[in-house]
Amino acid sequence: MLGRQSSMAEITVDISMSLDGFVAGPDRTLEAPLGRDGLLLHAWIFGLASWRKQHGLVGGERNADDERVAASLRASGAVVMGRRMWSGGAGPWDDDPNADGWWDDEPPFDVPVFVVTHHPRRAETKGGTPIAFVDGVEAAVEQARTAAGAKNVSIAGGAAVVQQAMRAGLVDELRLHVVPVFLGDGVRLFDGVAGRLRVTEAISSPAVTHLTYRPA
Amino acid sequence: MLGRQSSMAEITVDISMSLDGFVAGPDRTLEAPLGRDGLLLHAWIFGLASWRKQHGLVGGERNADDERVAASLRASGAVVMGRRMWSGGAGPWDDDPNADGWWDDEPPFDVPVFVVTHHPRRAETKGGTPIAFVDGVEAAVEQARTAAGAKNVSIAGGAAVVQQAMRAGLVDELRLHVVPVFLGDGVRLFDGVAGRLRVTEAISSPAVTHLTYRPA
Repeated sequence: MLGRQSSMAEITVDISMSLDGFVAGPDRTLEAPLGRDGLLLHAWIFGLASWRKQHGLVGGERNADDERVAASLRASGAVVMGRRMWSGGAGPWDDDPNADGWWDDEPPFDVPVFVVTHHPRRAETKGGTPIAFVDGVEAAVEQARTAAGAKNVSIAGGAAVVQQAMRAGLVDELRLHVVPVFLGDGVRLFDGVAGRLRVTEAISSPAVTHLTYRPA
Repeated sequence: MLGRQSSMAEITVDISMSLDGFVAGPDRTLEAPLGRDGLLLHAWIFGLASWRKQHGLVGGERNADDERVAASLRASGAVVMGRRMWSGGAGPWDDDPNADGWWDDEPPFDVPVFVVTHHPRRAETKGGTPIAFVDGVEAAVEQARTAAGAKNVSIAGGAAVVQQAMRAGLVDELRLHVVPVFLGDGVRLFDGVAGRLRVTEAISSPAVTHLTYRPA
Protein backbone atom coordinates (compact mmCIF):
# COMPACT_ATOMS: atom_id res chain seq x y z
CA MET A 1 0.00 0.00 0.00
CA LEU A 2 2.75 2.44 0.88
CA GLY A 3 4.19 2.12 -2.57
CA ARG A 4 0.90 2.99 -4.19
CA GLN A 5 0.26 6.02 -2.02
CA SER A 6 3.34 7.79 -3.29
CA SER A 7 2.09 7.84 -6.85
CA MET A 8 -0.99 8.29 -9.00
CA ALA A 9 0.17 5.49 -11.24
CA GLU A 10 -2.44 2.81 -11.87
CA ILE A 11 -2.69 -0.68 -13.27
CA THR A 12 -4.97 -0.48 -16.29
CA VAL A 13 -6.35 -2.99 -18.77
CA ASP A 14 -7.31 -2.02 -22.33
CA ILE A 15 -8.86 -4.89 -24.25
CA SER A 16 -11.31 -5.38 -27.12
CA MET A 17 -14.13 -7.88 -26.68
CA SER A 18 -16.96 -9.12 -28.88
CA LEU A 19 -20.53 -8.59 -27.78
CA ASP A 20 -20.65 -12.28 -26.89
CA GLY A 21 -17.58 -12.00 -24.67
CA PHE A 22 -14.65 -13.23 -26.76
CA VAL A 23 -11.20 -11.69 -27.21
CA ALA A 24 -10.24 -14.20 -29.92
CA GLY A 25 -12.26 -16.38 -32.25
CA PRO A 26 -12.19 -20.14 -32.75
CA ASP A 27 -9.65 -22.06 -34.85
CA ARG A 28 -6.53 -20.08 -33.99
CA THR A 29 -3.66 -20.85 -36.32
CA LEU A 30 -0.27 -19.48 -37.22
CA GLU A 31 -1.88 -17.50 -40.04
CA ALA A 32 -4.81 -16.35 -37.91
CA PRO A 33 -3.54 -16.10 -34.34
CA LEU A 34 -6.72 -14.32 -33.27
CA GLY A 35 -8.89 -17.06 -34.73
CA ARG A 36 -11.77 -16.87 -37.13
CA ASP A 37 -13.06 -13.27 -37.35
CA GLY A 38 -10.80 -12.32 -34.45
CA LEU A 39 -9.37 -9.38 -36.37
CA LEU A 40 -12.87 -7.86 -36.44
CA LEU A 41 -12.30 -7.02 -32.77
CA HIS A 42 -9.45 -4.70 -33.68
CA ALA A 43 -10.73 -3.17 -36.92
CA TRP A 44 -11.82 -0.08 -34.99
CA ILE A 45 -8.23 0.69 -33.95
CA PHE A 46 -6.20 -0.05 -37.11
CA GLY A 47 -7.24 3.14 -38.89
CA LEU A 48 -6.61 5.50 -35.98
CA ALA A 49 -3.80 8.04 -36.20
CA SER A 50 -2.48 7.12 -32.73
CA TRP A 51 -2.31 3.41 -33.52
CA ARG A 52 -0.67 4.06 -36.89
CA LYS A 53 1.88 6.35 -35.31
CA GLN A 54 2.69 3.71 -32.68
CA HIS A 55 3.33 1.28 -35.52
CA GLY A 56 5.51 3.69 -37.50
CA LEU A 57 2.83 4.70 -39.98
CA VAL A 58 1.61 8.14 -40.91
CA GLY A 59 -1.90 9.44 -41.38
CA GLY A 60 -5.04 7.90 -39.97
CA GLU A 61 -8.27 9.06 -38.43
CA ARG A 62 -8.41 11.59 -35.62
CA ASN A 63 -11.68 11.11 -33.80
CA ALA A 64 -12.97 10.37 -30.31
CA ASP A 65 -11.71 6.77 -30.49
CA ASP A 66 -8.30 8.06 -31.49
CA GLU A 67 -8.20 10.48 -28.56
CA ARG A 68 -8.87 7.66 -26.13
CA VAL A 69 -6.14 5.48 -27.60
CA ALA A 70 -3.68 8.37 -27.66
CA ALA A 71 -4.44 9.24 -24.03
CA SER A 72 -4.02 5.62 -22.98
CA LEU A 73 -0.66 5.38 -24.75
CA ARG A 74 0.55 8.69 -23.29
CA ALA A 75 -0.28 7.57 -19.75
CA SER A 76 1.37 4.17 -20.07
CA GLY A 77 4.90 3.66 -18.74
CA ALA A 78 5.12 -0.11 -19.12
CA VAL A 79 3.20 -2.94 -20.77
CA VAL A 80 2.44 -6.40 -19.37
CA MET A 81 1.29 -9.19 -21.68
CA GLY A 82 1.09 -12.95 -21.83
CA ARG A 83 3.56 -15.13 -23.67
CA ARG A 84 1.10 -16.16 -26.36
CA MET A 85 0.23 -12.55 -27.08
CA TRP A 86 3.91 -11.74 -27.26
CA SER A 87 4.70 -14.62 -29.57
CA GLY A 88 1.72 -14.45 -31.86
CA GLY A 89 -1.03 -16.31 -30.13
CA ALA A 90 -0.96 -19.80 -31.62
CA GLY A 91 0.81 -22.20 -33.89
CA PRO A 92 4.29 -23.66 -33.43
CA TRP A 93 5.10 -20.98 -30.86
CA ASP A 94 2.80 -22.68 -28.44
CA ASP A 95 5.15 -25.65 -28.48
CA ASP A 96 8.25 -23.53 -28.07
CA PRO A 97 8.02 -21.25 -25.06
CA ASN A 98 11.36 -19.68 -25.95
CA ALA A 99 10.40 -18.69 -29.47
CA ASP A 100 10.87 -15.09 -30.44
CA GLY A 101 7.81 -12.86 -30.58
CA TRP A 102 6.13 -11.71 -33.73
CA TRP A 103 6.95 -8.16 -32.67
CA ASP A 104 10.49 -9.21 -31.94
CA ASP A 105 12.43 -7.17 -34.46
CA GLU A 106 10.65 -3.90 -33.92
CA PRO A 107 8.10 -4.06 -31.10
CA PRO A 108 5.56 -1.23 -31.43
CA PHE A 109 5.98 -0.15 -27.82
CA ASP A 110 7.90 2.87 -26.67
CA VAL A 111 7.96 1.55 -23.11
CA PRO A 112 9.38 -1.53 -21.37
CA VAL A 113 7.47 -4.76 -21.98
CA PHE A 114 7.04 -7.50 -19.37
CA VAL A 115 6.07 -10.86 -20.79
CA VAL A 116 4.37 -13.27 -18.36
CA THR A 117 5.73 -16.78 -18.88
CA HIS A 118 6.45 -19.96 -16.97
CA HIS A 119 9.72 -20.10 -18.92
CA PRO A 120 11.56 -16.92 -17.91
CA ARG A 121 14.70 -16.11 -19.85
CA ARG A 122 17.21 -13.33 -20.00
CA ALA A 123 15.89 -9.85 -20.62
CA GLU A 124 16.71 -8.36 -23.99
CA THR A 125 16.32 -5.15 -25.93
CA LYS A 126 14.84 -5.14 -29.40
CA GLY A 127 14.35 -2.03 -31.49
CA GLY A 128 15.09 0.06 -28.40
CA THR A 129 12.39 -1.67 -26.35
CA PRO A 130 13.45 -3.49 -23.15
CA ILE A 131 11.71 -6.85 -22.88
CA ALA A 132 11.70 -8.87 -19.67
CA PHE A 133 10.29 -12.38 -19.20
CA VAL A 134 8.75 -12.87 -15.78
CA ASP A 135 7.11 -15.88 -14.13
CA GLY A 136 3.72 -14.83 -12.81
CA VAL A 137 1.40 -11.87 -13.32
CA GLU A 138 1.97 -10.39 -9.88
CA ALA A 139 5.75 -10.35 -10.28
CA ALA A 140 5.44 -8.95 -13.81
CA VAL A 141 3.13 -6.16 -12.66
CA GLU A 142 5.41 -5.32 -9.76
CA GLN A 143 8.45 -5.04 -12.03
CA ALA A 144 6.43 -3.08 -14.56
CA ARG A 145 5.31 -0.69 -11.83
CA THR A 146 8.90 0.08 -10.97
CA ALA A 147 9.75 0.59 -14.63
CA ALA A 148 6.71 2.81 -15.23
CA GLY A 149 7.52 5.20 -12.43
CA ALA A 150 4.76 7.79 -12.20
CA LYS A 151 3.03 6.41 -15.28
CA ASN A 152 0.49 3.60 -15.56
CA VAL A 153 1.12 -0.07 -16.14
CA SER A 154 -0.96 -1.28 -19.10
CA ILE A 155 -2.04 -4.88 -19.14
CA ALA A 156 -2.58 -5.70 -22.80
CA GLY A 157 -3.84 -9.30 -22.61
CA GLY A 158 -4.45 -12.04 -23.39
CA ALA A 159 -7.47 -13.23 -21.51
CA ALA A 160 -5.52 -15.43 -19.08
CA VAL A 161 -3.28 -12.59 -17.95
CA VAL A 162 -6.26 -10.26 -17.51
CA GLN A 163 -8.11 -12.93 -15.53
CA GLN A 164 -5.11 -13.57 -13.28
CA ALA A 165 -4.62 -9.84 -12.68
CA MET A 166 -8.30 -9.35 -11.87
CA ARG A 167 -8.39 -12.33 -9.52
CA ALA A 168 -5.30 -10.97 -7.75
CA GLY A 169 -7.05 -7.62 -7.29
CA LEU A 170 -4.35 -5.83 -9.24
CA VAL A 171 -6.51 -3.94 -11.73
CA ASP A 172 -7.39 -0.31 -10.93
CA GLU A 173 -9.20 0.36 -14.18
CA LEU A 174 -10.64 -1.97 -16.83
CA ARG A 175 -11.26 -0.31 -20.18
CA LEU A 176 -13.41 -2.65 -22.18
CA HIS A 177 -13.82 -1.93 -25.87
CA VAL A 178 -16.94 -3.79 -26.93
CA VAL A 179 -17.24 -4.46 -30.65
CA PRO A 180 -20.78 -5.25 -31.88
CA VAL A 181 -19.91 -8.56 -33.51
CA PHE A 182 -20.58 -12.14 -32.45
CA LEU A 183 -17.68 -14.60 -32.71
CA GLY A 184 -19.70 -17.57 -31.44
CA ASP A 185 -16.71 -19.36 -29.95
CA GLY A 186 -13.10 -18.77 -29.02
CA VAL A 187 -11.34 -17.31 -25.98
CA ARG A 188 -13.63 -15.79 -23.38
CA LEU A 189 -12.34 -12.73 -21.54
CA PHE A 190 -14.02 -13.28 -18.20
CA ASP A 191 -13.75 -17.03 -17.59
CA GLY A 192 -13.19 -17.64 -13.90
CA VAL A 193 -13.65 -14.00 -12.86
CA ALA A 194 -15.98 -13.37 -9.91
CA GLY A 195 -17.33 -10.47 -7.89
CA ARG A 196 -18.52 -7.13 -9.13
CA LEU A 197 -17.17 -3.88 -10.52
CA ARG A 198 -18.30 -0.27 -10.70
CA VAL A 199 -18.94 1.30 -14.10
CA THR A 200 -17.51 4.81 -14.37
CA GLU A 201 -18.01 5.62 -18.05
CA ALA A 202 -19.82 4.40 -21.14
CA ILE A 203 -19.36 6.12 -24.48
CA SER A 204 -19.65 4.86 -27.99
CA SER A 205 -18.66 5.49 -31.54
CA PRO A 206 -20.40 3.59 -34.33
CA ALA A 207 -17.54 1.07 -34.37
CA VAL A 208 -16.93 0.37 -30.70
CA THR A 209 -18.29 1.04 -27.23
CA HIS A 210 -15.83 2.06 -24.53
CA LEU A 211 -16.85 0.87 -21.08
CA THR A 212 -14.70 1.81 -18.09
CA TYR A 213 -14.83 -0.14 -14.84
CA ARG A 214 -13.13 0.18 -11.46
CA PRO A 215 -13.22 -2.01 -8.36
CA ALA A 216 -16.60 -1.85 -6.60
CA MET B 1 -42.46 -5.85 -45.64
CA LEU B 2 -45.77 -4.24 -46.57
CA GLY B 3 -47.13 -4.85 -43.13
CA ARG B 4 -44.16 -3.11 -41.53
CA GLN B 5 -44.31 -0.08 -43.78
CA SER B 6 -47.72 0.91 -42.53
CA SER B 7 -46.50 1.34 -38.99
CA MET B 8 -43.59 2.58 -36.92
CA ALA B 9 -44.04 -0.31 -34.53
CA GLU B 10 -40.87 -2.27 -33.83
CA ILE B 11 -39.79 -5.53 -32.29
CA THR B 12 -37.63 -4.69 -29.29
CA VAL B 13 -35.71 -6.71 -26.73
CA ASP B 14 -35.01 -5.38 -23.23
CA ILE B 15 -32.84 -7.73 -21.20
CA SER B 16 -30.34 -7.52 -18.33
CA MET B 17 -27.01 -9.29 -18.70
CA SER B 18 -23.98 -9.73 -16.46
CA LEU B 19 -20.62 -8.41 -17.61
CA ASP B 20 -19.64 -12.00 -18.36
CA GLY B 21 -22.66 -12.54 -20.56
CA PHE B 22 -25.23 -14.37 -18.42
CA VAL B 23 -28.95 -13.67 -18.02
CA ALA B 24 -29.29 -16.22 -15.20
CA GLY B 25 -26.81 -17.77 -12.82
CA PRO B 26 -26.00 -21.43 -12.18
CA ASP B 27 -28.01 -23.82 -9.99
CA ARG B 28 -31.49 -22.66 -10.90
CA THR B 29 -34.10 -24.01 -8.50
CA LEU B 30 -37.73 -23.46 -7.61
CA GLU B 31 -36.63 -21.04 -4.88
CA ALA B 32 -34.05 -19.30 -7.11
CA PRO B 33 -35.37 -19.50 -10.67
CA LEU B 34 -32.69 -17.05 -11.83
CA GLY B 35 -29.93 -19.15 -10.30
CA ARG B 36 -27.17 -18.17 -7.91
CA ASP B 37 -26.80 -14.39 -7.83
CA GLY B 38 -29.21 -14.11 -10.75
CA LEU B 39 -31.30 -11.51 -8.94
CA LEU B 40 -28.27 -9.20 -8.95
CA LEU B 41 -29.00 -8.66 -12.64
CA HIS B 42 -32.33 -7.06 -11.79
CA ALA B 43 -31.46 -5.14 -8.62
CA TRP B 44 -31.15 -1.96 -10.67
CA ILE B 45 -34.80 -2.10 -11.72
CA PHE B 46 -36.61 -3.20 -8.53
CA GLY B 47 -36.36 0.21 -6.89
CA LEU B 48 -37.53 2.24 -9.87
CA ALA B 49 -40.88 4.05 -9.75
CA SER B 50 -41.91 2.71 -13.16
CA TRP B 51 -41.20 -0.91 -12.22
CA ARG B 52 -42.96 -0.52 -8.87
CA LYS B 53 -46.00 1.02 -10.53
CA GLN B 54 -46.13 -1.83 -13.04
CA HIS B 55 -46.19 -4.24 -10.11
CA GLY B 56 -48.87 -2.35 -8.20
CA LEU B 57 -46.51 -0.64 -5.77
CA VAL B 58 -46.18 3.05 -4.99
CA GLY B 59 -43.05 5.16 -4.61
CA GLY B 60 -39.65 4.34 -5.97
CA GLU B 61 -36.79 6.18 -7.57
CA ARG B 62 -37.25 8.56 -10.47
CA ASN B 63 -33.94 8.82 -12.29
CA ALA B 64 -32.51 8.26 -15.77
CA ASP B 65 -32.86 4.48 -15.44
CA ASP B 66 -36.51 4.96 -14.46
CA GLU B 67 -37.16 7.18 -17.47
CA ARG B 68 -35.82 4.49 -19.80
CA VAL B 69 -37.96 1.79 -18.24
CA ALA B 70 -41.04 4.02 -18.28
CA ALA B 71 -40.51 4.91 -21.94
CA SER B 72 -40.06 1.26 -22.85
CA LEU B 73 -43.26 0.29 -21.04
CA ARG B 74 -45.22 3.16 -22.62
CA ALA B 75 -44.13 2.14 -26.12
CA SER B 76 -44.93 -1.54 -25.66
CA GLY B 77 -48.21 -2.92 -26.97
CA ALA B 78 -47.55 -6.61 -26.42
CA VAL B 79 -45.01 -8.85 -24.68
CA VAL B 80 -43.44 -12.07 -25.96
CA MET B 81 -41.65 -14.42 -23.55
CA GLY B 82 -40.57 -18.02 -23.23
CA ARG B 83 -42.48 -20.64 -21.32
CA ARG B 84 -39.87 -20.96 -18.59
CA MET B 85 -39.88 -17.22 -18.01
CA TRP B 86 -43.63 -17.29 -17.85
CA SER B 87 -43.74 -20.18 -15.42
CA GLY B 88 -40.89 -19.22 -13.14
CA GLY B 89 -37.77 -20.43 -14.80
CA ALA B 90 -37.04 -23.79 -13.24
CA GLY B 91 -38.20 -26.45 -10.85
CA PRO B 92 -41.25 -28.66 -11.21
CA TRP B 93 -42.67 -26.37 -13.88
CA ASP B 94 -40.02 -27.58 -16.25
CA ASP B 95 -41.59 -31.02 -16.09
CA ASP B 96 -45.10 -29.72 -16.57
CA PRO B 97 -45.41 -27.57 -19.67
CA ASN B 98 -49.01 -26.82 -18.81
CA ALA B 99 -48.34 -25.50 -15.33
CA ASP B 100 -49.63 -22.08 -14.49
CA GLY B 101 -47.19 -19.18 -14.47
CA TRP B 102 -45.85 -17.53 -11.37
CA TRP B 103 -47.49 -14.32 -12.56
CA ASP B 104 -50.66 -16.24 -13.23
CA ASP B 105 -53.09 -14.63 -10.81
CA GLU B 106 -52.10 -11.05 -11.47
CA PRO B 107 -49.56 -10.70 -14.28
CA PRO B 108 -47.77 -7.34 -14.06
CA PHE B 109 -48.41 -6.52 -17.71
CA ASP B 110 -50.98 -4.09 -18.96
CA VAL B 111 -50.71 -5.51 -22.47
CA PRO B 112 -51.35 -8.90 -24.10
CA VAL B 113 -48.74 -11.57 -23.37
CA PHE B 114 -47.66 -14.22 -25.88
CA VAL B 115 -45.91 -17.21 -24.34
CA VAL B 116 -43.70 -19.25 -26.68
CA THR B 117 -44.19 -22.94 -26.03
CA HIS B 118 -44.15 -26.26 -27.82
CA HIS B 119 -47.28 -27.11 -25.85
CA PRO B 120 -49.83 -24.50 -26.95
CA ARG B 121 -53.06 -24.39 -25.01
CA ARG B 122 -56.17 -22.28 -24.97
CA ALA B 123 -55.71 -18.54 -24.47
CA GLU B 124 -56.88 -17.17 -21.16
CA THR B 125 -57.27 -13.87 -19.36
CA LYS B 126 -55.86 -13.39 -15.89
CA GLY B 127 -56.12 -10.16 -13.93
CA GLY B 128 -57.31 -8.45 -17.08
CA THR B 129 -54.26 -9.56 -19.10
CA PRO B 130 -54.85 -11.71 -22.21
CA ILE B 131 -52.36 -14.57 -22.37
CA ALA B 132 -51.85 -16.65 -25.49
CA PHE B 133 -49.66 -19.73 -25.82
CA VAL B 134 -48.03 -19.98 -29.24
CA ASP B 135 -45.73 -22.57 -30.81
CA GLY B 136 -42.67 -20.80 -32.19
CA VAL B 137 -41.12 -17.36 -31.79
CA GLU B 138 -42.02 -16.18 -35.27
CA ALA B 139 -45.70 -17.03 -34.84
CA ALA B 140 -45.74 -15.47 -31.38
CA VAL B 141 -44.15 -12.25 -32.65
CA GLU B 142 -46.58 -12.11 -35.56
CA GLN B 143 -49.60 -12.46 -33.28
CA ALA B 144 -48.11 -9.98 -30.84
CA ARG B 145 -47.58 -7.50 -33.66
CA THR B 146 -51.25 -7.64 -34.53
CA ALA B 147 -52.21 -7.19 -30.88
CA ALA B 148 -49.79 -4.30 -30.40
CA GLY B 149 -51.14 -2.27 -33.29
CA ALA B 150 -49.06 0.90 -33.63
CA LYS B 151 -47.06 0.07 -30.51
CA ASN B 152 -43.91 -2.05 -30.14
CA VAL B 153 -43.66 -5.73 -29.42
CA SER B 154 -41.36 -6.31 -26.43
CA ILE B 155 -39.44 -9.55 -26.26
CA ALA B 156 -38.74 -10.07 -22.57
CA GLY B 157 -36.66 -13.28 -22.62
CA GLY B 158 -35.41 -15.74 -21.73
CA ALA B 159 -32.19 -16.26 -23.62
CA ALA B 160 -33.55 -18.95 -25.94
CA VAL B 161 -36.41 -16.77 -27.17
CA VAL B 162 -34.06 -13.81 -27.71
CA GLN B 163 -31.63 -16.03 -29.62
CA GLN B 164 -34.38 -17.46 -31.81
CA ALA B 165 -35.73 -13.99 -32.55
CA MET B 166 -32.27 -12.66 -33.40
CA ARG B 167 -31.48 -15.63 -35.64
CA ALA B 168 -34.78 -15.11 -37.44
CA GLY B 169 -33.88 -11.46 -38.03
CA LEU B 170 -36.94 -10.29 -36.14
CA VAL B 171 -35.31 -7.84 -33.73
CA ASP B 172 -35.32 -4.15 -34.68
CA GLU B 173 -33.71 -2.95 -31.46
CA LEU B 174 -31.79 -4.76 -28.73
CA ARG B 175 -31.58 -2.87 -25.46
CA LEU B 176 -28.95 -4.56 -23.39
CA HIS B 177 -28.73 -3.61 -19.73
CA VAL B 178 -25.25 -4.66 -18.62
CA VAL B 179 -24.81 -5.08 -14.88
CA PRO B 180 -21.19 -4.96 -13.64
CA VAL B 181 -21.27 -8.32 -11.87
CA PHE B 182 -19.75 -11.67 -12.81
CA LEU B 183 -21.99 -14.73 -12.44
CA GLY B 184 -19.31 -17.18 -13.60
CA ASP B 185 -21.78 -19.70 -15.01
CA GLY B 186 -25.43 -20.01 -15.95
CA VAL B 187 -27.47 -19.12 -19.03
CA ARG B 188 -25.60 -17.19 -21.70
CA LEU B 189 -27.57 -14.60 -23.63
CA PHE B 190 -25.80 -14.87 -26.97
CA ASP B 191 -25.17 -18.60 -27.44
CA GLY B 192 -25.55 -19.46 -31.09
CA VAL B 193 -25.97 -15.87 -32.28
CA ALA B 194 -23.84 -14.81 -35.26
CA GLY B 195 -23.21 -11.76 -37.38
CA ARG B 196 -22.86 -8.18 -36.27
CA LEU B 197 -24.95 -5.29 -35.00
CA ARG B 198 -24.71 -1.52 -34.97
CA VAL B 199 -24.49 0.30 -31.64
CA THR B 200 -26.72 3.35 -31.49
CA GLU B 201 -26.41 4.41 -27.85
CA ALA B 202 -24.39 3.77 -24.72
CA ILE B 203 -25.27 5.45 -21.47
CA SER B 204 -24.69 4.45 -17.90
CA SER B 205 -25.84 4.97 -14.37
CA PRO B 206 -23.69 3.64 -11.51
CA ALA B 207 -25.86 0.50 -11.37
CA VAL B 208 -26.26 -0.45 -15.01
CA THR B 209 -25.09 0.39 -18.51
CA HIS B 210 -27.71 0.70 -21.22
CA LEU B 211 -26.43 -0.37 -24.64
CA THR B 212 -28.73 -0.08 -27.65
CA TYR B 213 -28.13 -2.06 -30.82
CA ARG B 214 -29.85 -2.28 -34.19
CA PRO B 215 -29.23 -4.52 -37.21
CA ALA B 216 -25.97 -3.62 -39.00
